[in-house]
Amino acid sequence: MSRLAFLGPHGTFTEQALRSLPESRGAELVPCAGNPAVLAAIREGRADAGCVPIENSVEGAVPPVLDGLVEDPPLVIVREALLAVRFALLVRPGTTVAGIRTVASHPHGIAQTRGWIARTFPDAEILLSTSTSEAAAQVARGEIDAAVSAPVAAAQHGLEVFADDIADNPGAVTRFVLVAPPGPPPPPTGHDRTTLAATTENRPGSLLGLLTELAVRGIDMTRIESRPIKDRHAEYWFHLDCSGHVAEPAMGEALAGLHRRCDEVRFLGSYPRAVGSAGPAAGSGAPAVPLSVAGKSEFAAAEAWLAAVRTGGCG
Amino acid sequence: MSRLAFLGPHGTFTEQALRSLPESRGAELVPCAGNPAVLAAIREGRADAGCVPIENSVEGAVPPVLDGLVEDPPLVIVREALLAVRFALLVRPGTTVAGIRTVASHPHGIAQTRGWIARTFPDAEILLSTSTSEAAAQVARGEIDAAVSAPVAAAQHGLEVFADDIADNPGAVTRFVLVAPPGPPPPPTGHDRTTLAATTENRPGSLLGLLTELAVRGIDMTRIESRPIKDRHAEYWFHLDCSGHVAEPAMGEALAGLHRRCDEVRFLGSYPRAVGSAGPAAGSGAPAVPLSVAGKSEFAAAEAWLAAVRTGGCG
Amino acid sequence: MSRLAFLGPHGTFTEQALRSLPESRGAELVPCAGNPAVLAAIREGRADAGCVPIENSVEGAVPPVLDGLVEDPPLVIVREALLAVRFALLVRPGTTVAGIRTVASHPHGIAQTRGWIARTFPDAEILLSTSTSEAAAQVARGEIDAAVSAPVAAAQHGLEVFADDIADNPGAVTRFVLVAPPGPPPPPTGHDRTTLAATTENRPGSLLGLLTELAVRGIDMTRIESRPIKDRHAEYWFHLDCSGHVAEPAMGEALAGLHRRCDEVRFLGSYPRAVGSAGPAAGSGAPAVPLSVAGKSEFAAAEAWLAAVRTGGCG
Amino acid sequence: MSRLAFLGPHGTFTEQALRSLPESRGAELVPCAGNPAVLAAIREGRADAGCVPIENSVEGAVPPVLDGLVEDPPLVIVREALLAVRFALLVRPGTTVAGIRTVASHPHGIAQTRGWIARTFPDAEILLSTSTSEAAAQVARGEIDAAVSAPVAAAQHGLEVFADDIADNPGAVTRFVLVAPPGPPPPPTGHDRTTLAATTENRPGSLLGLLTELAVRGIDMTRIESRPIKDRHAEYWFHLDCSGHVAEPAMGEALAGLHRRCDEVRFLGSYPRAVGSAGPAAGSGAPAVPLSVAGKSEFAAAEAWLAAVRTGGCG
Repeated sequence: MSRLAFLGPHGTFTEQALRSLPESRGAELVPCAGNPAVLAAIREGRADAGCVPIENSVEGAVPPVLDGLVEDPPLVIVREALLAVRFALLVRPGTTVAGIRTVASHPHGIAQTRGWIARTFPDAEILLSTSTSEAAAQVARGEIDAAVSAPVAAAQHGLEVFADDIADNPGAVTRFVLVAPPGPPPPPTGHDRTTLAATTENRPGSLLGLLTELAVRGIDMTRIESRPIKDRHAEYWFHLDCSGHVAEPAMGEALAGLHRRCDEVRFLGSYPRAVGSAGPAAGSGAPAVPLSVAGKSEFAAAEAWLAAVRTGGCG
Repeated sequence: MSRLAFLGPHGTFTEQALRSLPESRGAELVPCAGNPAVLAAIREGRADAGCVPIENSVEGAVPPVLDGLVEDPPLVIVREALLAVRFALLVRPGTTVAGIRTVASHPHGIAQTRGWIARTFPDAEILLSTSTSEAAAQVARGEIDAAVSAPVAAAQHGLEVFADDIADNPGAVTRFVLVAPPGPPPPPTGHDRTTLAATTENRPGSLLGLLTELAVRGIDMTRIESRPIKDRHAEYWFHLDCSGHVAEPAMGEALAGLHRRCDEVRFLGSYPRAVGSAGPAAGSGAPAVPLSVAGKSEFAAAEAWLAAVRTGGCG
Repeated sequence: MSRLAFLGPHGTFTEQALRSLPESRGAELVPCAGNPAVLAAIREGRADAGCVPIENSVEGAVPPVLDGLVEDPPLVIVREALLAVRFALLVRPGTTVAGIRTVASHPHGIAQTRGWIARTFPDAEILLSTSTSEAAAQVARGEIDAAVSAPVAAAQHGLEVFADDIADNPGAVTRFVLVAPPGPPPPPTGHDRTTLAATTENRPGSLLGLLTELAVRGIDMTRIESRPIKDRHAEYWFHLDCSGHVAEPAMGEALAGLHRRCDEVRFLGSYPRAVGSAGPAAGSGAPAVPLSVAGKSEFAAAEAWLAAVRTGGCG
Repeated sequence: MSRLAFLGPHGTFTEQALRSLPESRGAELVPCAGNPAVLAAIREGRADAGCVPIENSVEGAVPPVLDGLVEDPPLVIVREALLAVRFALLVRPGTTVAGIRTVASHPHGIAQTRGWIARTFPDAEILLSTSTSEAAAQVARGEIDAAVSAPVAAAQHGLEVFADDIADNPGAVTRFVLVAPPGPPPPPTGHDRTTLAATTENRPGSLLGLLTELAVRGIDMTRIESRPIKDRHAEYWFHLDCSGHVAEPAMGEALAGLHRRCDEVRFLGSYPRAVGSAGPAAGSGAPAVPLSVAGKSEFAAAEAWLAAVRTGGCG
């Protein structure tokens, strides 16, 4: 992978997450204007892969990314990264409290620091920017007084950190995923996640049937979102994260079951769970309870028994 | 198959059922004293296969046969036959109504004609025999006056039919099965039955879990019985008949699922359903509703999709 | 209750079970020829209640009793008794081994001692009687040489015990129930059993739906039997025993759920579980796991919450 | 209700939705700075009720509203309104194509017109505002050139409509809800919706259990969202919309079941479904299939049967 797309400009949290991945070493990083643009760059061949946020421990799922993943042509997730999101207030050097009358950030940055801003600058005007890094650039250009941004953006834009760790819920973690065109999934590590989306008939019990396909094979589901399908009233894509890898029998059987049951299933990738970091993804990926029905050895034993029975052994 | 065991003596309903099967042509038929003796003869190599009743449309399951099937070494069902059970009252030639003071039959024969006997011979003494054919032999020996038996037993024992079709519920059908040591099952015909037994943890919901393994793969269950496990208080073998064949993906996957979930699973055979005859087996074998989730083509399509996804196709 | 019916003649296991119940004190015990006759005597007002066997730890359910319970007019179970079934071989005083050439019993008595008889008297002729007590009477009358019977029948018929405890599976326990016309059920004791029967559409998943009504309310099912419905091909009554009492919210809600879902539901009684005795009924009535979802206090709390929410409280 | 809060300033879609409700007649409408501020105004008694958007047919759920609804003290939904969201591009009178270099709107307005803007003004700079109405105000003040806004905002701010119906997905509908402190819910109309949120143990199958409580009572679920619980890793509020009213037996029983099963359940209101309007809410509120198990008459019949059984009737 030599060209990797991300939400620009340089200095965004997405770039930070992308740089934490081994794939970024030696790669050309291509900033794009928006997450949909990142996915488009991959689909159109202008990038070999791209990094997008998919879930935040405070804000929840990132809807445009979920919606973009199920568009055509298909894309799959090949890796994930967890990033502790730390917000700082950046100003031009020498700015005083009295000089801060306008504060800008990406809507997510504003949402996560709204309480702090209201307490600290009750009279400041709040403005929205297309990225936290763009907000910092606006401060550098003198258009606004302060930006809620990643601390690293200070150096990039010649600003200074007026206040650090200003998030209302410290410890927020965002899960980013590296997305690429379909190809053989990374080999199973034993601690993998599988992401998928499915649509099903809109009638009572249809979601229950879908979840039963997972539960009966002991698959642990760690996230579910419903997203309306554009132009189809009252129909939804259900987006799910599960523990396990498509190469494993339990997950393979469950996916085949979903394929038979659902109107459409999108396999969105099997990839190693990010570790060594707190956060929603790591937390929800480590099931509170081991596989309820059977692990790999039970699946193998059952396969061996079935093969014997089918060929006339006594089982 | 050259030696086939059955419940003797000659003239029983079991012999009639066995003679209706193609396997009986040219075979030596070996009468045994009781259904357990039939199963023992197969297990001990004194017979190559044997015929036993498993279910009657009026009387229900035949418990000693169910219990015998799950003993060791394993046995499997390779074919089934449906027999309309028609009872007649057999007497010595010249017997008059006034001369019928004792009536004998196998307990099942008595149970299915009790109303008719009570109305016709309210004062007769009822006696039990070890088979309907043995009752006829007792009449021939002059030990009792009348036997409830198959009409064919009249010729065998030099008796005459005093009254025919005397069952309280006319149209009773008994399902018989041909049992043999394990071997490759008969090939699927598209109208097959699979018989199995399973034990599971004795806790709320465990039977529900077992049935979910079938339902989630669209397997139609046509019979269920619970039988206490000897020497284990409050534990049961669940005996099930299902539509489908172990060679088919849906049934294979369901059996493997049961193997993972249950303490013990006994595969008791996949074999063609008997047709051209009314009765419980034919009736319950023809599911009122087609497979609810998926048929063979959907299973094949799901397998193909899964293989593509696992190797990097776009699914 | 002044007139209580039971399977006669005097000396049967059923009479023993009936005499163990407080209801038998001061009552007139009415012997009947067969369990169906016991049920008929209650339905026709010739008895106020009656005792019938419903389940044996070795032989399983007693089909004619199950079938008889769902006939009309309705009957309900008001009490149960567990009886350790101990078989003895009874002979006329002075009988020697060489003098035992014929052995008789009720089919269940023969079934449970078959191995012992075959080892001890390999050449004896086996005969069937309508009850174990009747077999003892036949010995007393000199018609046969030995009877498999309850030890208590020896005194009744002037016989002596040739061998005691001859069952192939010692420790067999039979569960008997006292049946009466519908009336207010005995009050809950906290250790109750509810017996019911239900029919449901014959389609894949219908039994699963039925069991889900129980499981979702945490009801523990301790026995299930399917019995063909006379004259209706491939349709079944499912007979169930559950832990709990109809007066309790969980059981009431589950029964109401079954009533909505099933073609027909028969409430066959809520009554105290028999205790102080080993056996299948006691064993299976003591759930291995406490109610999985909720006990009484959770039901009460949920009712209170719902009432608050419905009237505008904040829940 | 005399004081009703909404997302201000005047001219927002939320105000339009609120004005469509009968409760707005004669009421004082109180503009607030953000949806969280609307909820706070109700909780703190500064407003008697308030209007917030909960779901958009294109953008999906509105996360801060979902999160705000489950905070304390409790609030409930008492009514809903559907509003067809029609976007127009508003400019100062006389503005020409060449004069449009900056375009502003609320992030949702930008998201839903991004394609049209990119095609029509590929070189325009996109800016974000805190509401569509505020964007119009910015145009009026001369700070930016054009606003994506509701057409009604033109008159309010002295602007003119440069282009109307510019949404990329025409036909988008937003569902708004009127929220108030707990009180008796509006009486059932037969076409009601119940909104609730629940948290459950984080283990395989727990969501399945939650949905089974609904499905087993035939409750149709029309929306599900999972939202991370702040400060609790890997735990979620599941937000659900269902068809039916808390006063009905099926919904009451299901809610009580959830109360027993879940760590916490929030009843968020039963209220009439909005009709006469296309859109996701109307569509998903009209179940594709009638109640699968039982309707009101079956619930009533089951209650009557249960009452009879409990008091000794024959059921």
